[in-house]
Amino acid sequence: MSEKEKRIKKRREYFIRAAKEIIDYYGVKALSVRKVAEQAGYAPATIYNYFGSMDGLLSAVMDSYAAEAMEWLREKSSLDLPAARKIKVLYIEFARFFLEKPDLFKIIFMNENLVVIDDADIIPNFKEMYRLRIELFQRLSLEHGYESETAVKLERIITSMLFGMLYSYYYSTSNNTKEELLDELRLNIEYLIPEARDSE
Amino acid sequence: MSEKEKRIKKRREYFIRAAKEIIDYYGVKALSVRKVAEQAGYAPATIYNYFGSMDGLLSAVMDSYAAEAMEWLREKSSLDLPAARKIKVLYIEFARFFLEKPDLFKIIFMNENLVVIDDADIIPNFKEMYRLRIELFQRLSLEHGYESETAVKLERIITSMLFGMLYSYYYSTSNNTKEELLDELRLNIEYLIPEARDSE
Repeated sequence: MSEKEKRIKKRREYFIRAAKEIIDYYGVKALSVRKVAEQAGYAPATIYNYFGSMDGLLSAVMDSYAAEAMEWLREKSSLDLPAARKIKVLYIEFARFFLEKPDLFKIIFMNENLVVIDDADIIPNFKEMYRLRIELFQRLSLEHGYESETAVKLERIITSMLFGMLYSYYYSTSNNTKEELLDELRLNIEYLIPEARDSE
Repeated sequence: MSEKEKRIKKRREYFIRAAKEIIDYYGVKALSVRKVAEQAGYAPATIYNYFGSMDGLLSAVMDSYAAEAMEWLREKSSLDLPAARKIKVLYIEFARFFLEKPDLFKIIFMNENLVVIDDADIIPNFKEMYRLRIELFQRLSLEHGYESETAVKLERIITSMLFGMLYSYYYSTSNNTKEELLDELRLNIEYLIPEARDSE
């Protein structure tokens, strides 16, 4: 990373921290270019220089929350496991993380007005999470003999199922407790990928 | 149904209609006991007599929207199909209905403050929808030789997956078009229940 890139990264962090402080104190709806700039001690126009738009800044803020989830996942997935079992562990830990942090789940995944800027510089952690997931399902195909088309389908089914369960939990359309949700998730993954079962 | 029951049903309908008018004009957040009573031409206390609480009235309103979905599903499911294919048709038509009616989806399924009153008198259509779904998966087990435990699991997996897909669509966390979503749903169901494939 060049000096210039480092400086850009650092400046971005000032704004991201300022935005998170506003979210923590006043909620996500209170965010505005003016407020964030004021909190960060810069002119409002600077935000456009560093993030392109307010949506760019918001994406960067979401990504900084995603970094917390990635840290949790990296810690839990450092185990040397076959792909099938690692997939199970990661989905369960992802669910556990967001069940413990309802505010983060709501800010990231229940934000109707959020336009995510699909730029790897701005959302490196979301990109990393996606890469990790796709890579694991490729390994599923290599290690356990699933056709790659099937592995792709399983990734889509399990990811949609996971989010369906989390949304139903947060909208209280399901009566599951957190532990029941995690248990059902585990059993469903073991049904879809029998190799994910823990060896006896 | 006795005369008294008919009268209660009719009175309830006045309030439900009044509440829906308010929702249509001002949005769901504008609902209040006072406004609904005013619109229906009754005293506010009457709402408590007929629905127990404002949440009771809201549940009844949601159910009246669910009636529209049920009507659509009944029309589409009148076909005499094997259970596996009927399940596929019903999930796809349920998704199609709510993709065409984003307002209804948001009012019913994206309403964090909604406390659903679990009373068959107040939400008959939700109960009917649930019964229809469970019955079809029981038929899956009888007609296609799935163990009943597996049929129960498939119902949970497919329902969560469906909602995960719909929520991702409404929160724009997926870039699928409506038709792509329906197509992916169909392929995933056919993967999970191979008998759901249309015969050649």
